[in-house]
Amino acid sequence: MMEQKTEPVFPKGEKITNNNFTGTVWLKNLIEADSINQNSVACVTFEPGARSNWHLHPSGQILLAISGIGYYQEKGSPKIILHKGDVVKCPPNIQHWHGAGPDQEFVQVAITSRQGGPTEWLQPVTDEEYNQSAK
Amino acid sequence: MMEQKTEPVFPKGEKITNNNFTGTVWLKNLIEADSINQNSVACVTFEPGARSNWHLHPSGQILLAISGIGYYQEKGSPKIILHKGDVVKCPPNIQHWHGAGPDQEFVQVAITSRQGGPTEWLQPVTDEEYNQSAK
Repeated sequence: MMEQKTEPVFPKGEKITNNNFTGTVWLKNLIEADSINQNSVACVTFEPGARSNWHLHPSGQILLAISGIGYYQEKGSPKIILHKGDVVKCPPNIQHWHGAGPDQEFVQVAITSRQGGPTEWLQPVTDEEYNQSAK
Repeated sequence: MMEQKTEPVFPKGEKITNNNFTGTVWLKNLIEADSINQNSVACVTFEPGARSNWHLHPSGQILLAISGIGYYQEKGSPKIILHKGDVVKCPPNIQHWHGAGPDQEFVQVAITSRQGGPTEWLQPVTDEEYNQSAK
Protein backbone atom coordinates (compact mmCIF):
# COMPACT_ATOMS: atom_id res chain seq x y z
CA MET A 1 0.00 0.00 0.00
CA MET A 2 1.32 3.44 -0.84
CA GLU A 3 1.68 5.73 2.14
CA GLN A 4 -0.07 9.09 2.01
CA LYS A 5 2.12 11.49 3.93
CA THR A 6 -0.84 13.72 4.64
CA GLU A 7 -2.64 10.93 6.50
CA PRO A 8 -2.42 10.96 10.29
CA VAL A 9 0.38 8.84 11.72
CA PHE A 10 -1.90 6.96 14.13
CA PRO A 11 -5.59 6.03 13.92
CA LYS A 12 -7.91 8.44 15.71
CA GLY A 13 -9.35 5.71 17.92
CA GLU A 14 -12.53 6.09 19.94
CA LYS A 15 -14.29 9.17 21.27
CA ILE A 16 -13.63 9.64 24.99
CA THR A 17 -16.95 9.48 26.85
CA ASN A 18 -15.86 10.19 30.42
CA ASN A 19 -16.11 13.60 32.14
CA ASN A 20 -12.38 14.30 32.27
CA PHE A 21 -12.42 16.37 29.09
CA THR A 22 -14.24 19.40 27.64
CA GLY A 23 -15.20 19.07 23.97
CA THR A 24 -14.61 16.12 21.69
CA VAL A 25 -11.46 14.09 22.20
CA TRP A 26 -10.43 10.77 20.63
CA LEU A 27 -8.14 8.17 22.21
CA LYS A 28 -6.11 5.44 20.54
CA ASN A 29 -4.21 3.27 22.99
CA LEU A 30 -0.94 2.21 21.38
CA ILE A 31 0.91 0.40 24.18
CA GLU A 32 -0.42 -0.87 27.50
CA ALA A 33 1.77 -0.76 30.59
CA ASP A 34 2.91 -4.11 32.00
CA SER A 35 4.78 -5.18 35.10
CA ILE A 36 8.18 -4.76 33.42
CA ASN A 37 7.62 -1.72 31.19
CA GLN A 38 5.25 0.43 33.19
CA ASN A 39 4.67 3.01 30.47
CA SER A 40 1.48 3.29 28.52
CA VAL A 41 1.51 5.09 25.17
CA ALA A 42 -1.59 6.62 23.60
CA CYS A 43 -2.45 8.95 20.76
CA VAL A 44 -4.94 11.66 21.75
CA THR A 45 -6.74 13.87 19.23
CA PHE A 46 -8.45 17.07 20.45
CA GLU A 47 -10.95 18.89 18.25
CA PRO A 48 -10.42 22.68 18.18
CA GLY A 49 -11.17 24.10 21.65
CA ALA A 50 -11.20 20.69 23.34
CA ARG A 51 -9.03 20.11 26.39
CA SER A 52 -8.43 17.85 29.33
CA ASN A 53 -9.50 18.72 32.85
CA TRP A 54 -6.78 19.71 35.26
CA HIS A 55 -5.03 16.51 36.35
CA LEU A 56 -1.77 15.10 37.65
CA HIS A 57 0.31 11.99 37.13
CA PRO A 58 2.12 10.46 40.13
CA SER A 59 5.09 9.51 37.94
CA GLY A 60 4.82 12.26 35.33
CA GLN A 61 4.11 12.15 31.63
CA ILE A 62 5.83 12.90 28.34
CA LEU A 63 3.86 14.57 25.53
CA LEU A 64 4.92 14.58 21.86
CA ALA A 65 3.06 17.05 19.65
CA ILE A 66 2.34 15.29 16.36
CA SER A 67 0.18 17.76 14.44
CA GLY A 68 -1.88 20.92 14.82
CA ILE A 69 -1.59 23.59 17.51
CA GLY A 70 -1.96 22.63 21.17
CA TYR A 71 -1.99 24.28 24.57
CA TYR A 72 -0.27 23.06 27.75
CA GLN A 73 -0.32 24.66 31.17
CA GLU A 74 1.06 23.79 34.58
CA LYS A 75 -0.66 25.28 37.63
CA GLY A 76 0.92 28.62 38.50
CA SER A 77 2.68 29.03 35.13
CA PRO A 78 1.43 30.63 31.91
CA LYS A 79 -0.11 28.52 29.17
CA ILE A 80 2.33 27.54 26.44
CA ILE A 81 1.60 26.80 22.79
CA LEU A 82 2.65 23.45 21.33
CA HIS A 83 3.53 22.97 17.67
CA LYS A 84 4.18 19.79 15.73
CA GLY A 85 7.47 18.30 16.96
CA ASP A 86 7.39 19.97 20.39
CA VAL A 87 7.89 17.78 23.43
CA VAL A 88 6.89 18.32 27.06
CA LYS A 89 7.94 16.49 30.18
CA CYS A 90 5.21 16.97 32.81
CA PRO A 91 6.75 16.58 36.26
CA PRO A 92 5.14 14.14 38.72
CA ASN A 93 2.27 15.45 40.82
CA ILE A 94 2.10 18.84 39.09
CA GLN A 95 -1.42 19.91 38.16
CA HIS A 96 -1.67 20.62 34.46
CA TRP A 97 -3.97 20.46 31.44
CA HIS A 98 -3.52 20.15 27.69
CA GLY A 99 -5.66 20.45 24.63
CA ALA A 100 -6.11 21.98 21.19
CA GLY A 101 -5.99 25.64 20.31
CA PRO A 102 -9.24 27.16 19.07
CA ASP A 103 -8.64 26.87 15.31
CA GLN A 104 -7.37 23.41 14.50
CA GLU A 105 -7.27 19.84 15.71
CA PHE A 106 -4.29 18.89 17.89
CA VAL A 107 -2.77 15.42 17.96
CA GLN A 108 -0.39 14.32 20.72
CA VAL A 109 1.27 11.12 21.83
CA ALA A 110 1.20 10.73 25.61
CA ILE A 111 3.75 8.48 27.33
CA THR A 112 2.61 7.89 30.88
CA SER A 113 4.45 6.02 33.59
CA ARG A 114 2.01 3.98 35.69
CA GLN A 115 4.61 3.23 38.34
CA GLY A 116 3.32 5.69 40.93
CA GLY A 117 -0.36 4.95 40.39
CA PRO A 118 -3.21 6.18 38.21
CA THR A 119 -3.81 9.70 36.92
CA GLU A 120 -5.67 11.91 39.39
CA TRP A 121 -8.42 13.88 37.63
CA LEU A 122 -9.50 17.30 38.88
CA GLN A 123 -11.81 20.16 37.84
CA PRO A 124 -12.53 21.24 34.23
CA VAL A 125 -10.50 24.03 32.62
CA THR A 126 -12.75 27.09 32.51
CA ASP A 127 -13.13 29.20 29.37
CA GLU A 128 -11.27 31.97 31.18
CA GLU A 129 -8.34 29.67 31.89
CA TYR A 130 -8.46 28.29 28.34
CA ASN A 131 -8.51 31.74 26.73
CA GLN A 132 -5.74 33.33 28.80
CA SER A 133 -2.69 34.68 26.98
CA ALA A 134 0.06 32.24 26.22
CA LYS A 135 3.64 32.74 27.30
CA MET B 1 4.29 29.87 10.77
CA MET B 2 1.98 27.68 8.69
CA GLU B 3 2.50 24.00 9.19
CA GLN B 4 3.35 21.89 6.14
CA LYS B 5 1.79 18.51 6.74
CA THR B 6 4.35 16.88 4.48
CA GLU B 7 7.21 18.04 6.70
CA PRO B 8 8.61 15.51 9.16
CA VAL B 9 7.13 15.64 12.65
CA PHE B 10 10.52 15.88 14.36
CA PRO B 11 13.84 17.34 13.24
CA LYS B 12 16.25 14.81 11.77
CA GLY B 13 18.98 15.62 14.32
CA GLU B 14 22.60 14.60 13.92
CA LYS B 15 24.21 11.77 12.00
CA ILE B 16 25.16 8.90 14.28
CA THR B 17 28.92 8.38 14.10
CA ASN B 18 29.40 5.34 16.33
CA ASN B 19 29.76 1.75 15.09
CA ASN B 20 26.40 0.50 16.34
CA PHE B 21 24.69 1.04 12.99
CA THR B 22 25.14 0.05 9.34
CA GLY B 23 24.44 2.84 6.84
CA THR B 24 23.46 6.41 7.60
CA VAL B 25 21.25 7.03 10.61
CA TRP B 26 20.23 10.34 12.23
CA LEU B 27 19.35 10.82 15.89
CA LYS B 28 17.32 13.57 17.50
CA ASN B 29 17.07 13.26 21.28
CA LEU B 30 13.66 14.52 22.39
CA ILE B 31 13.57 13.73 26.11
CA GLU B 32 16.41 12.73 28.43
CA ALA B 33 15.79 10.26 31.24
CA ASP B 34 16.01 11.63 34.77
CA SER B 35 15.87 10.08 38.23
CA ILE B 36 12.06 10.27 38.38
CA ASN B 37 11.07 9.56 34.76
CA GLN B 38 13.66 7.08 33.60
CA ASN B 39 12.54 7.04 29.98
CA SER B 40 14.45 8.66 27.19
CA VAL B 41 12.65 9.47 23.95
CA ALA B 42 14.44 9.92 20.63
CA CYS B 43 13.56 10.18 16.97
CA VAL B 44 15.71 7.99 14.73
CA THR B 45 15.81 8.30 10.95
CA PHE B 46 17.30 5.45 8.91
CA GLU B 47 18.26 5.95 5.25
CA PRO B 48 17.07 3.11 2.98
CA GLY B 49 18.99 -0.06 3.89
CA ALA B 50 20.36 1.37 7.14
CA ARG B 51 19.86 -0.55 10.37
CA SER B 52 21.02 -0.90 13.93
CA ASN B 53 23.33 -3.65 15.08
CA TRP B 54 21.82 -6.42 17.13
CA HIS B 55 21.31 -5.08 20.64
CA LEU B 56 19.25 -5.44 23.79
CA HIS B 57 17.71 -3.16 26.40
CA PRO B 58 17.71 -4.29 30.06
CA SER B 59 14.29 -2.69 30.59
CA GLY B 60 12.92 -3.00 27.08
CA GLN B 61 11.94 -0.39 24.52
CA ILE B 62 8.87 0.90 22.73
CA LEU B 63 9.07 1.83 19.04
CA LEU B 64 6.55 4.03 17.22
CA ALA B 65 6.79 3.96 13.41
CA ILE B 66 6.30 7.54 12.20
CA SER B 67 6.94 7.33 8.45
CA GLY B 68 8.38 5.09 5.75
CA ILE B 69 8.84 1.33 5.81
CA GLY B 70 10.91 -0.28 8.55
CA TYR B 71 12.14 -3.69 9.60
CA TYR B 72 12.21 -5.16 13.11
CA GLN B 73 13.47 -8.55 14.18
CA GLU B 74 13.89 -10.36 17.47
CA LYS B 75 16.48 -13.16 17.66
CA GLY B 76 14.86 -16.48 16.72
CA SER B 77 11.79 -14.88 15.11
CA PRO B 78 11.21 -13.76 11.53
CA LYS B 79 11.74 -10.15 10.52
CA ILE B 80 8.57 -8.08 10.50
CA ILE B 81 7.75 -5.03 8.39
CA LEU B 82 6.77 -1.79 10.12
CA HIS B 83 4.48 0.79 8.53
CA LYS B 84 3.61 4.30 9.67
CA GLY B 85 1.51 4.02 12.85
CA ASP B 86 2.78 0.56 13.86
CA VAL B 87 4.05 0.13 17.41
CA VAL B 88 6.41 -2.46 18.87
CA LYS B 89 7.16 -3.31 22.48
CA CYS B 90 10.63 -4.90 22.61
CA PRO B 91 10.86 -7.12 25.67
CA PRO B 92 13.76 -6.63 28.08
CA ASN B 93 17.01 -8.47 27.30
CA ILE B 94 15.80 -9.80 23.96
CA GLN B 95 18.30 -9.40 21.14
CA HIS B 96 16.80 -7.47 18.25
CA TRP B 97 17.54 -4.99 15.48
CA HIS B 98 15.57 -2.41 13.55
CA GLY B 99 16.06 -0.25 10.53
CA ALA B 100 14.70 0.92 7.19
CA GLY B 101 13.55 -1.23 4.31
CA PRO B 102 15.63 -0.99 1.13
CA ASP B 103 13.51 1.56 -0.75
CA GLN B 104 12.65 4.43 1.54
CA GLU B 105 13.72 6.27 4.65
CA PHE B 106 12.20 5.03 7.91
CA VAL B 107 11.49 7.29 10.89
CA GLN B 108 10.78 5.91 14.35
CA VAL B 109 10.36 7.25 17.85
CA ALA B 110 12.14 5.10 20.43
CA ILE B 111 11.03 5.19 24.06
CA THR B 112 13.70 3.52 26.17
CA SER B 113 13.59 2.83 29.87
CA ARG B 114 17.00 3.42 31.44
CA GLN B 115 15.97 1.79 34.71
CA GLY B 116 17.83 -1.48 34.18
CA GLY B 117 20.97 0.04 32.70
CA PRO B 118 22.32 1.04 29.31
CA THR B 119 21.66 -0.62 25.95
CA GLU B 120 23.99 -3.53 25.24
CA TRP B 121 25.30 -3.37 21.67
CA LEU B 122 26.20 -6.51 19.76
CA GLN B 123 27.29 -7.54 16.25
CA PRO B 124 26.17 -5.88 12.99
CA VAL B 125 23.19 -7.27 11.07
CA THR B 126 24.61 -9.06 8.02
CA ASP B 127 23.19 -8.52 4.53
CA GLU B 128 21.85 -12.08 4.68
CA GLU B 129 19.98 -11.32 7.90
CA TYR B 130 18.77 -7.99 6.53
CA ASN B 131 17.52 -9.49 3.26
CA GLN B 132 15.69 -12.49 4.72
CA SER B 133 11.99 -12.84 4.04
CA ALA B 134 9.62 -11.03 6.34
CA LYS B 135 6.84 -12.71 8.25
